[in-house]
Amino acid sequence: MRIHVQNGADDGAFAVTAAMFDGSGHSVSIGTTQAAFDAAIGDAEALIVPSSLARGLFPCAAPQLRLIFCTSAGLEKLAPYDWLPQGVTLLNNSGVHSGRAGEYSAMALLMLAGQMPALITAQHEQCWDKRFGSVLRGRHVGILGVGDLGAAAARQARHFGMRTTGIRARPEPHPDFDRIITQDQLDDALPGLEFLLVAAPLTPATAGMITRARMQALPQGAGVINIGRGAIIDQEALCDLLDSGHLGGAVIDVFVPEPIPPGHRLWTTRNLVVTPHCAADDPNTYAADSVRVFLANVAALREGRALPNRFDTIRGY
Amino acid sequence: MRIHVQNGADDGAFAVTAAMFDGSGHSVSIGTTQAAFDAAIGDAEALIVPSSLARGLFPCAAPQLRLIFCTSAGLEKLAPYDWLPQGVTLLNNSGVHSGRAGEYSAMALLMLAGQMPALITAQHEQCWDKRFGSVLRGRHVGILGVGDLGAAAARQARHFGMRTTGIRARPEPHPDFDRIITQDQLDDALPGLEFLLVAAPLTPATAGMITRARMQALPQGAGVINIGRGAIIDQEALCDLLDSGHLGGAVIDVFVPEPIPPGHRLWTTRNLVVTPHCAADDPNTYAADSVRVFLANVAALREGRALPNRFDTIRGY
Repeated sequence: MRIHVQNGADDGAFAVTAAMFDGSGHSVSIGTTQAAFDAAIGDAEALIVPSSLARGLFPCAAPQLRLIFCTSAGLEKLAPYDWLPQGVTLLNNSGVHSGRAGEYSAMALLMLAGQMPALITAQHEQCWDKRFGSVLRGRHVGILGVGDLGAAAARQARHFGMRTTGIRARPEPHPDFDRIITQDQLDDALPGLEFLLVAAPLTPATAGMITRARMQALPQGAGVINIGRGAIIDQEALCDLLDSGHLGGAVIDVFVPEPIPPGHRLWTTRNLVVTPHCAADDPNTYAADSVRVFLANVAALREGRALPNRFDTIRGY
Repeated sequence: MRIHVQNGADDGAFAVTAAMFDGSGHSVSIGTTQAAFDAAIGDAEALIVPSSLARGLFPCAAPQLRLIFCTSAGLEKLAPYDWLPQGVTLLNNSGVHSGRAGEYSAMALLMLAGQMPALITAQHEQCWDKRFGSVLRGRHVGILGVGDLGAAAARQARHFGMRTTGIRARPEPHPDFDRIITQDQLDDALPGLEFLLVAAPLTPATAGMITRARMQALPQGAGVINIGRGAIIDQEALCDLLDSGHLGGAVIDVFVPEPIPPGHRLWTTRNLVVTPHCAADDPNTYAADSVRVFLANVAALREGRALPNRFDTIRGY
C-alpha cells in the first residue's frame, strides 16, 4: 500500500518514523511541510496524520485515498466531518493509550485514597497535617466509558481489589467490569460510588453528562477523576463541590479550555490536582504503537474484515 | 491470658478496643490513664501499648508480665532497651502495614513515572507545562529492606511489570523479588536502578546508608522513595541532587526531624513530594490487624513455636 505520513513539525518523540514500518512491505513517504504533503497525496492510498492537522489538509485531490488514520483516539474536534473525502474511511488509534491511561488511573485512585490532594496543599503551606488514607480494597469505582481507557482503568482498579461498575450506552456486560449499567441507570448508582472516573469520548450523548446534581448525588467525600474530555463534567460545579467539601478530592487531566488560562480557579481549587492532558500518552511507545494499530486495520481491510478502528462519525467514537 | 491494653489518650481510630478480642477467650482490660495502668499491670501477662508510651511506663512492678506488644513496626526509639523488664519478650506489629505501604509505594512509583512532582509544581505556578510520563513496565526498582514493607512494595512493582532488586543484609532469595543482593553489592547495582525505594528499619547497619555518593551513583533522572526511616538517607544530599536535577523526583514520607520544621528546605525543594509519616497506616484496619498479629504470637507461645514478631534488640528489627 502507498502510505503517506504527515507529521507535525514539533511532534518530537511522537513523530512516526519510516523504521516503524520495517518489514511491512508498504511504500511509505514521510513529511512535515505542505509541499511534502502535496507531492505525496496524489497517489497515497492511506494518510497517517495527527488529528490536529487532518482537517486543514482538505479539500485536495486525493484520487487513490481510502484511509485516513489519525494518531488520536478522540476525534470530536474534526466534526462536522464534511471535509472527509467521499469514500475515505476515518480511523482513530484507539488501543494505544491503555498502558499509560491504566497507570494514570491507578495513580489517581491511589492519590485520592491516600489523601494526596490535601497533603500536597499542606506541603505548599509548610504544614505537617498528619492524615491517613485507607486502602482501595472493597471500595467502589464507577467508570464512565468502557472503551480502551475505561477498561484499562477497571483492570487496575480490580488489581487493588475494588468493585467496578462500568457505565455505557449499551447494556452488554464487559469482562473487565463487575457490573455494567446504562446511562439511564446512572442516577440510581451514584450514591453508592466512592469514586467516579470519566473515561468516555466527547459525544452528543456524553457532553455535560456529569452535572452538578449528579456530583451532588455522590456520597460525601467522594473522589472524581477525568481522563476523557473536559466538557463531559460541569467544571464550575466540580470546583464548587470541592470548595464546599462535598467532594473529597479530584484528579483531572482534561479541561475546557485547554490550556487552562492563568488565574482560572482550576489551578487553585482546594483538593484538586490538575495535569496538562498527558494522562494517556507515553512518548516512548505512542508512535510505534499507533503504526501497529494502523497496520492491523490494513490487514483487516485486505482480509475483508471490519476495520477495528473505524471511527463512526455519527456516534462520535 | 490476662492482657492489658494501654491506649494513648488521642489515639482516635488507632485505639485498640475490647471488641477486637471477641471470641479469643482472653481477659482484657483497656485504659488510657496512669491509674488504669497501675491497676492492671500487677497481674497482666501481656501489655499492648503504642511504642511512644512503652518506655515511660517502666520500671514498675509487673511480676506476671511476659509479653510487651508495641503497635508499631520500627521500635528504634525504644533503644537502649534496658527499661525492658527481665524475662519479658518485646514484640512489634510487623505485618500490619503491608496493605497501605504497598499502595503508597505503587502510588509513589506511578507519580515519579508520571512526572507528577514537576506537574504539581507547575500547577502551583499556574503553568500548563505539558510533559509526558512513561509506563513502569520493564523499568528497574531497587528496594532497600525486604521485610513486610519492602515485600509489599515489590509485589506492587511486579504488578506493573517492573524488575525488582531487593537489598538486604543476608543473601537469601525472596519470592517477591527477581533478585536479592547484599548491602556490599549495592554500589555496583546503583547505576542500573531507575528507582530506589527505602523500606528498611533504622538500625546501626542502615543508618546513613544512602549517602550522597550513592545517590550520585544512581542514573540521571532517577527517582527516590522513602517509607522506612528518615535517617537512612542523607536528606541534605537528597535535596541538593533534586536541586541540581541529577535526581528526577522523590516521594518521601519519613524525615529527620519529624515534624519537618517550618522553613525547612524539605518543604520547598523542587520535584520533592513530602507526606507526614502516613505511608503505612490505615486507620480503618490498623488496630484490629495489630490485635490479630498479637493473637498469632500468643498462639505461637502456647504451642512452643518461635514468636513471629519477636523484636531482636541487638539486630534492631
